[in-house]
Amino acid sequence: MGRTLTYSKHSANTVNRYKHRATYDLGAIHSIINSSQVLHVSFHPGPADAFPAILPLIGQMGSFEYPSAGIDEPLDCYLHGYVSSRIMNLARASEGEGLPICVAASRVDGLVLSLTPNSHNYNYRSAILHGYANLVTDEQEKLWAMQLITNSVVTDRWNNSRVPPDGAEMASTVILKVRVVDGSGKIRDGGVTDERKDKNNDQLTGRIWTGVIPVWETFGEPVPSAENRVADTPEHVSSFVAKMNERNRTYAENAIKVALPPEEQH
Amino acid sequence: MGRTLTYSKHSANTVNRYKHRATYDLGAIHSIINSSQVLHVSFHPGPADAFPAILPLIGQMGSFEYPSAGIDEPLDCYLHGYVSSRIMNLARASEGEGLPICVAASRVDGLVLSLTPNSHNYNYRSAILHGYANLVTDEQEKLWAMQLITNSVVTDRWNNSRVPPDGAEMASTVILKVRVVDGSGKIRDGGVTDERKDKNNDQLTGRIWTGVIPVWETFGEPVPSAENRVADTPEHVSSFVAKMNERNRTYAENAIKVALPPEEQH
Repeated sequence: MGRTLTYSKHSANTVNRYKHRATYDLGAIHSIINSSQVLHVSFHPGPADAFPAILPLIGQMGSFEYPSAGIDEPLDCYLHGYVSSRIMNLARASEGEGLPICVAASRVDGLVLSLTPNSHNYNYRSAILHGYANLVTDEQEKLWAMQLITNSVVTDRWNNSRVPPDGAEMASTVILKVRVVDGSGKIRDGGVTDERKDKNNDQLTGRIWTGVIPVWETFGEPVPSAENRVADTPEHVSSFVAKMNERNRTYAENAIKVALPPEEQH
Repeated sequence: MGRTLTYSKHSANTVNRYKHRATYDLGAIHSIINSSQVLHVSFHPGPADAFPAILPLIGQMGSFEYPSAGIDEPLDCYLHGYVSSRIMNLARASEGEGLPICVAASRVDGLVLSLTPNSHNYNYRSAILHGYANLVTDEQEKLWAMQLITNSVVTDRWNNSRVPPDGAEMASTVILKVRVVDGSGKIRDGGVTDERKDKNNDQLTGRIWTGVIPVWETFGEPVPSAENRVADTPEHVSSFVAKMNERNRTYAENAIKVALPPEEQH
């Protein structure tokens, strides 16, 4: 159900990056990653460990080498973490191409309530990337990535805070750069789908309500800290809140109106 | 930063489950899992695969053996999936205790905007579980888990839809039961924290706004499907929407007011 998005097989080959035709899929996958406040990052802790590990991290797609690269071009994934965390130690100690990891992002846009439990669904967007993670050691690239990630939390926040970070702050922050090997995504939008046998059953349709509950993330009224000395909520904060609420609500409400693909129309 | 929650080392030992003293931690971890609309589930695809895999799945904590078990008692994690998906095939083919997996859930409750990028933070709740996954083969347990998971999407939806599922519906649905081996969680709430050196710098505090933007998931006005024949939004849907909006908003707003632990008060 829904649309499946995939990376082109050669999208990770940056040697030929300017020959690569940017695809809609790449842009859609990167957008899902970039618009997620939390990424779930999985890795193998080591041979002695039976279970894979998952860490929630903040991250963002970008290209330090090609800063003008668009969202639909090959990009690296930059992840923010603490210097002593396990994933950072594993990446620091990794040999060869780096630490193999999986990055996942998902968001729910609506609850699709149909006639039967089996035909219930979510409107959602999800994406995963596979790649090799290495610590960013170049100070310029690290600073660039910290700015990229801070501004993804609140637009323009970097220049509206005390920057640049001092030596201790730079040392305590670690940025992982993930060279993406492949990725995929899935988007489901639209309305309710049911089997013909249920839709034609008047006893059921007379009794069971069907429809979609749109779901979106709301940003509330900013609450100043007890120690805040700035009288008004600054423009970069209030416009961010307004923009996100409009974007999220509009997406969830419009997703319901998207026509279902033919194979889902019974 | 924030509180760290951990499973007791022996919580997975169900032989002694009635001797186990329920902990606040167990309840908090289970609540984070149960209140998440999407769980991220990680597994090793196989020896030929360099990368771990992550799947977004719907799931819920519960005990079929001890249906009266509380949220703070040892519970299994039930995950919903499709019969042909890779994780289901791996679990079906797994030997020994089952397929080793990691289940993760995270939610953001607020954006904590402080004086420096490094002291920025989220208010959030996150939890992970490690355990062994096996397919549920008992039909009664499978039906029970399907009801548990459907009702976690919208309270009481199971009895307000066409149930029980027919033979084909039962056959196409697979439920994974995860026997939990260990788990942990982390909760961050409260306001802004900054270093004394920045807080005492009038030039910074006069210029940089600090505070928290609360964040919560909103459920919008239910949109009936084109084929819906029931005149009004039913009570189980409208009361669910009202309850979730009140719960989510209240949590995010109250999280800001929680006193910071002493080690975070500079």
